[in-house]
Amino acid sequence: MHMDIIEIIGTIAAILTTGSFLPQVYQTWKTKSTESLSLPMFSMFFTGVCLWVYYAFKIGSTPLLVANGITAICSGALLYFKLKYK
Amino acid sequence: MHMDIIEIIGTIAAILTTGSFLPQVYQTWKTKSTESLSLPMFSMFFTGVCLWVYYAFKIGSTPLLVANGITAICSGALLYFKLKYK
Repeated sequence: MHMDIIEIIGTIAAILTTGSFLPQVYQTWKTKSTESLSLPMFSMFFTGVCLWVYYAFKIGSTPLLVANGITAICSGALLYFKLKYK
Repeated sequence: MHMDIIEIIGTIAAILTTGSFLPQVYQTWKTKSTESLSLPMFSMFFTGVCLWVYYAFKIGSTPLLVANGITAICSGALLYFKLKYK
């Protein structure tokens, strides 16, 4: 199998895992329902993704920076909603 | 700054983002509450993480394989709960 195909699969994986947060942010913003969301999850996840952003910046990886930057904004918004609408 | 410190930060980031799913799985399993969880999010996320597992396997990255393997199991469980308890 060509390495190119593997890289395309990695790119699709990154788009899916990063993009998946958008419908969750939209639903939570629209419904204000946060009961089923775990506060420890979004606290840990947001902290971890912020560290990923720092890591990506330090190693100079633009794809990692963009993907984690978007995920940081989305998971930060969900953490904010969770704290606001509890 | 030493490269080692950056790698430690990356490792902490990976532990946090992977581990964050455990309290969510526990809460959802315990409460059976899935109302606030977005079905499109967990469908996209689970698919994306499965592609990451495949990508990690193909490029031979054990840390990426372990982290995404755990995340695949957790997000798969959440997707199952979402479909079961809706």
